[in-house]
Amino acid sequence: MAGTAEVLGEIDKTLNAAVARLFDLVKIPSISTDPAFAGECRNAAQWLVDDLGGIGFEARVVDTPGHPMVVAHYKGPAGAPHVLFYGHYDVQPVDPLNLWSHPPFEPSLRDGASGKVMTGRGTSDDKGQLMTFVEAARAWKNTAGGLPISVTILFEGEEESGSPSLKPFLEAYRDELKADIALVCDTNMWDSDTPAISTGLRGLVGEELTIHAASRDLHSGYYGSAAANPIRVLTRVLAGLHDDNGRVTLPGFYDGVSETPAEILQQWGSLGFSEQKFLGDIGLSVPAGEKDRSVLEQTWARPTAEFNGIIGGYTGDGFKTVIPAKASAKVSFRLVGKQDPKAIRKAFREFVTSRLPADCRAEFHEHGGSPAISLDINLPELKKATAALKDEWGRDTALIAMGGSIPIVGDFQNILGMNSLLIGFAHASDNIHSPNEKYDLKSFHKGIRSWARIMQALAGQSYSAG
Amino acid sequence: MAGTAEVLGEIDKTLNAAVARLFDLVKIPSISTDPAFAGECRNAAQWLVDDLGGIGFEARVVDTPGHPMVVAHYKGPAGAPHVLFYGHYDVQPVDPLNLWSHPPFEPSLRDGASGKVMTGRGTSDDKGQLMTFVEAARAWKNTAGGLPISVTILFEGEEESGSPSLKPFLEAYRDELKADIALVCDTNMWDSDTPAISTGLRGLVGEELTIHAASRDLHSGYYGSAAANPIRVLTRVLAGLHDDNGRVTLPGFYDGVSETPAEILQQWGSLGFSEQKFLGDIGLSVPAGEKDRSVLEQTWARPTAEFNGIIGGYTGDGFKTVIPAKASAKVSFRLVGKQDPKAIRKAFREFVTSRLPADCRAEFHEHGGSPAISLDINLPELKKATAALKDEWGRDTALIAMGGSIPIVGDFQNILGMNSLLIGFAHASDNIHSPNEKYDLKSFHKGIRSWARIMQALAGQSYSAG
Repeated sequence: MAGTAEVLGEIDKTLNAAVARLFDLVKIPSISTDPAFAGECRNAAQWLVDDLGGIGFEARVVDTPGHPMVVAHYKGPAGAPHVLFYGHYDVQPVDPLNLWSHPPFEPSLRDGASGKVMTGRGTSDDKGQLMTFVEAARAWKNTAGGLPISVTILFEGEEESGSPSLKPFLEAYRDELKADIALVCDTNMWDSDTPAISTGLRGLVGEELTIHAASRDLHSGYYGSAAANPIRVLTRVLAGLHDDNGRVTLPGFYDGVSETPAEILQQWGSLGFSEQKFLGDIGLSVPAGEKDRSVLEQTWARPTAEFNGIIGGYTGDGFKTVIPAKASAKVSFRLVGKQDPKAIRKAFREFVTSRLPADCRAEFHEHGGSPAISLDINLPELKKATAALKDEWGRDTALIAMGGSIPIVGDFQNILGMNSLLIGFAHASDNIHSPNEKYDLKSFHKGIRSWARIMQALAGQSYSAG
Repeated sequence: MAGTAEVLGEIDKTLNAAVARLFDLVKIPSISTDPAFAGECRNAAQWLVDDLGGIGFEARVVDTPGHPMVVAHYKGPAGAPHVLFYGHYDVQPVDPLNLWSHPPFEPSLRDGASGKVMTGRGTSDDKGQLMTFVEAARAWKNTAGGLPISVTILFEGEEESGSPSLKPFLEAYRDELKADIALVCDTNMWDSDTPAISTGLRGLVGEELTIHAASRDLHSGYYGSAAANPIRVLTRVLAGLHDDNGRVTLPGFYDGVSETPAEILQQWGSLGFSEQKFLGDIGLSVPAGEKDRSVLEQTWARPTAEFNGIIGGYTGDGFKTVIPAKASAKVSFRLVGKQDPKAIRKAFREFVTSRLPADCRAEFHEHGGSPAISLDINLPELKKATAALKDEWGRDTALIAMGGSIPIVGDFQNILGMNSLLIGFAHASDNIHSPNEKYDLKSFHKGIRSWARIMQALAGQSYSAG
């Protein structure tokens, strides 16, 4: 059986054919939010089933109430570890079309600012990324006659439209999808030379709050001062959620929040992250979170309360002297460590209710709740993957955290009981939800090589750099 | 020359004809906001010119860039006082039509909860009210051969659509319109048996405030905590505008605000006003203004800050974890006493600006500013009018204040240098901007009689109850 060196050589030799296959997939306009493209979503799923079948996977399209799933299995050597690889074949809409330099569904290889780039909707998110893994599997199969590990593949077709079918699907196919660990390829590198793995994801509690006051809208001349104004009540409640140091004031909010370990802070300190550039790129200059915490700590390791929307009264042109009957806000809490979403939601509702005038009432709507996720940085699979990535890229992998939430990771943990390794080769400059999406040829090529190495590393065979 | 008794008798005898005339005017659908009804507005103006001409007024339609004005003059006895009577012939739209029990432009006399009522759009606001004065003039003319005072009439056709032509018109026709005092008939009685004159009107400063933070909308997972959130900045600024006792915290805000004189408070205390009913009618129970002030004082005699609208971020269904680039609010200040609108606006802008993070900025738009107006309660015309009203209604006139602003009163004061007496016979139950507008026959009949007596009283001739 051939080793990693032969597999990598095969990848280098056949890169053009791999690009051509990706382009075939990109040409299928599998826009999941638009019902007019439902047939194209099915075509993309079928294309993947056919391609995986050619590599030796047992692959099939599985129907859901929405767009179908692709499920595929490859049985590796006896006793080999078993991974679940997740990606999604659906893509974002392409409007406004006139802002595209090249047609979104006619992919091409061009010279870009970062070297050769592949243009087209889905080249990065997520068709290009998921094909890095498929191509690595193909190279193993063609060179060594088979993969060194067992692989289950799950490709979703609704990631860009809220994944409505995913949770029920994971529950229904729990036994078939269970593996030792999940690999999720939908994230970015730290920079174009430094691979990254996210070891922390903040949790989220979403709440919609409506303050009700008078039974109808009132004229502010006639009733002003005497009648409770729900905008005034709402702004007072919301303004009380942070203290002068940017800390959240909810009683018990910091229960379960630990200080970030020194070794992690040190690792983040070595990333060369510029707060000035991060904020400067969006026209800001002053970190707005807790005082005396770095921006990386604020966004990766600290919980927060944000106001995502607010509305009440007259908001059109001109002016209307109205006191509205109600006002509402959407509030989200990002969670870290062991913060309990249920406890946070309860504390928020009590906080609001205790601050209401006697003749106002609050109405709450729940918009999701999930705890933070953090990966043990001593997890063996993580160690193996970072070693493989170092061999490919010549640099230590940045072990980062993410301020956002990736629901699939929580679902894999909660429903399938599996950790996830988040490894991706995209860049912030890929325009993944905008016109002119692209994927660097370097990301694609070295991404394939990276997965080939990771497969070998996870197999636990004596690992030799190719 | 006949006296008041004969005039009042004539009014009683000819009431049916007066109702018929009002109905003719109500039948003209002079909706000023809808350009489709521009011709009807002109028809209403012409109808009034013709009617006033029949009484002996020199009356004419005067064009403006919008709907025309009606201007009419009656020269009374040499040396008689001269009043400017103001009303408006335009009406509110009638949607939703299906909520009307009777067609809005087919007026009729019916039995209502409060006795006989006249139904139809404009029966109260303001065609019915302005015709009380015209009918009083007609009765004087027909009985005594002429009016006891000189009268200039100004009927506007844009009151329900913001009066865009009014100020330039007052300026252009300043000399022609100037009189000793203005009479404005567009207000309510205190209750169905108690006449009212408003001696105080709060002023108004309108401000629209937009807080700008990042250069674009941000994902709250990626940027949350670190990036300034303009909704958070806005709520914090707005929440700081009131202290725990409901007082406005702007530096200098209470400059020029005097305590309400004891005699006024005593007069208000005698009105039988129920705070419980006032708030209970709108589903509230707790006065929201300055602590230790009555509701009447809060709404009639104290300045206030109200939030009339607020918007920012995602406000649709569901949830979006966005940090918006901006958030805005519409804020109004009601002024009393000698508060200076310019100083209040300046103090508000400084208050906001001083509370901004260094990387946020505030944008302000001005939406009107006018000082409070208060009538000297010892004004001779006021004394005469209240005496005349007492003779008609058998009760003392309620000398009230109004929490709202009536721009025409400020315009008469600023442009024409005239005080205004606000005397009207409408009721809160008249549904003046809603379906099923009505005017009580009692309001119409005794309103005509009231004006007949007031004309006599103002003439200063020895006044004898009719």
